[in-house]
Amino acid sequence: MQSSPEPPDAVVITNLINIRYLTGFTGSNAALLVSPSRTVFATDGRYEGQSARECPDVERLIARPCPEALFALALTSGFHRIAFESEHVSVAVHASWLTEFPSATLVPNVGAVEAARIVKDAYEIAFLRRACAISDQALSALLPSIRPGMTERDVARRLESLMLDLGADAPSFETIAAAGENSAIPHHSPTERALVAGDLLKLDFGAEVGGYHADITRTFCLGSPADWQQEIHDLVREAQTAGREAVRAGADVVAVDTAVRSIITAAGHGEHFGHGLGHGVGLEIHEAPTLGPLGTGILAAGTPVTVEPGVYLLGRGGVRIEDTQLVTDGASESLTTSERDLVVLG
Amino acid sequence: MQSSPEPPDAVVITNLINIRYLTGFTGSNAALLVSPSRTVFATDGRYEGQSARECPDVERLIARPCPEALFALALTSGFHRIAFESEHVSVAVHASWLTEFPSATLVPNVGAVEAARIVKDAYEIAFLRRACAISDQALSALLPSIRPGMTERDVARRLESLMLDLGADAPSFETIAAAGENSAIPHHSPTERALVAGDLLKLDFGAEVGGYHADITRTFCLGSPADWQQEIHDLVREAQTAGREAVRAGADVVAVDTAVRSIITAAGHGEHFGHGLGHGVGLEIHEAPTLGPLGTGILAAGTPVTVEPGVYLLGRGGVRIEDTQLVTDGASESLTTSERDLVVLG
Repeated sequence: MQSSPEPPDAVVITNLINIRYLTGFTGSNAALLVSPSRTVFATDGRYEGQSARECPDVERLIARPCPEALFALALTSGFHRIAFESEHVSVAVHASWLTEFPSATLVPNVGAVEAARIVKDAYEIAFLRRACAISDQALSALLPSIRPGMTERDVARRLESLMLDLGADAPSFETIAAAGENSAIPHHSPTERALVAGDLLKLDFGAEVGGYHADITRTFCLGSPADWQQEIHDLVREAQTAGREAVRAGADVVAVDTAVRSIITAAGHGEHFGHGLGHGVGLEIHEAPTLGPLGTGILAAGTPVTVEPGVYLLGRGGVRIEDTQLVTDGASESLTTSERDLVVLG
Repeated sequence: MQSSPEPPDAVVITNLINIRYLTGFTGSNAALLVSPSRTVFATDGRYEGQSARECPDVERLIARPCPEALFALALTSGFHRIAFESEHVSVAVHASWLTEFPSATLVPNVGAVEAARIVKDAYEIAFLRRACAISDQALSALLPSIRPGMTERDVARRLESLMLDLGADAPSFETIAAAGENSAIPHHSPTERALVAGDLLKLDFGAEVGGYHADITRTFCLGSPADWQQEIHDLVREAQTAGREAVRAGADVVAVDTAVRSIITAAGHGEHFGHGLGHGVGLEIHEAPTLGPLGTGILAAGTPVTVEPGVYLLGRGGVRIEDTQLVTDGASESLTTSERDLVVLG
């Protein structure tokens, strides 16, 4: 079937993050009808009071199920070509809509709200700055307490607790605390493994404030680093600096990745950097754009992205250094600023 | 199009919870091909070591993107009618599969693995018992410390910390601590509101152990209860007991809800109990079956469900009492056992 050039009459948004972005609503069930003439927000009775507080300026409908109530409203309003978020609607739900609303023409739409979310406004950046500052402060408060004998899980819990003490709404994601050979696992869940002298300790974490997610990684050494530890840390340090410098308005996301990857590859560790360079952050911890070989697009001012190269030597240990970096009208600014040289702990 | 009676040659599972159930894998990216002759698990390079540990007995493929790698494998293996989980695959991904694999016939399948997950085996029930025991123990440890002046957020953080101290892998979900008028909000996120004498305090929480989720709610009073507080607590207490007694093998899920709802309605509070009675718990905090007016099915031995009636008086306060209840060969057993009569705190 040829896609029709005709624009839709209305769109029904069902992704809750996109609804939060457009309305401010933070509950767990809602849908939003957007049309040139009318915008209607639907949620269920559990969220009547909360939605009145969070999105007082939008027309509200208390109904369940929410998207179906809005489809019915759209059709009675004369909207028949209705766009939906095809990345966020399951095949089963779509089939049920086709059955329930035979007079509607459902038009798949991919990423319209996500694209609008890439560039952040001052209101969003203020939350992100606060989230990044809390992350830096929590790390500073944590480091003096780290000793051999603590477990990865102890370290992660303490760091998360410090972020909450400092005003985070929540951790951005499950804190990664990875010691020794576990530091070579890019995504490691903290275990009961105790820290011992000579370990690399990789911490990847962040604070969430007002829905916005900070993301930072630092790698430390318990006691004096061995030559190989210092060497890969120096390499990642150099590559990450190059990455932060490459992040600027107008830069191609693949070129930014290449600027970093070429340094690591030239040092003989290309195969030990098995993931992309970074990703956008905002209302989600991972969102557009992707900085990596498979990414597409040009960075624009107001876009926060992570810059997080790593070198992972399986069975031995790994180093990653990551900052949340904001593209500005000039080049870019690191919103997380903790010390990037190798810090010796314990 | 008529659905064909012909069975699929194979199924590609993409829901990560279902993959965990079938293989034990706990990472964030995987797919699973199941056919009469061959089962193949796919994940990406980040999870090579973890998947070798967690699912050593299944044929593994390290490839990305995972479902697409398995579709290609299925087609080269001669499997052309391939079922997929239509509740968990987006319209956009499905469209990309149709384009990439024109020789495949994609057959929507709804809830096959979820249906298998409803009845738990002894291995699963052991985790759930441990999760429920930790939840009870954490509550016991928390209560002596509750005082006016603590905030909802203080209470929730302390309770979550106690669960982790007692061996929980994580909280089952964001702990609800709702004081005073906030206790009338069924799903309330903890705030900086401080507890004051005379408040109802509703705590809805649980521990997660080995992937299995406990779920329990108790409502307390800070200081001596007012008559209305004691009255709605007595009512919910009576209704919840009736609900636990109605949960038994062979019971219809609507009838169990009705047994509870009729008591609350007879007392004039039917409109103040605006949600279903309960839900299955297991690898997800909310899973099949649904105990409520819109549920369908008959309870079978080995099924854990929540029983959680509530009465919510907007602007004043509310009471909910909830247990995780296991259907047995006899009637049922409460896996959470904390005191259900109104406990006075502070």
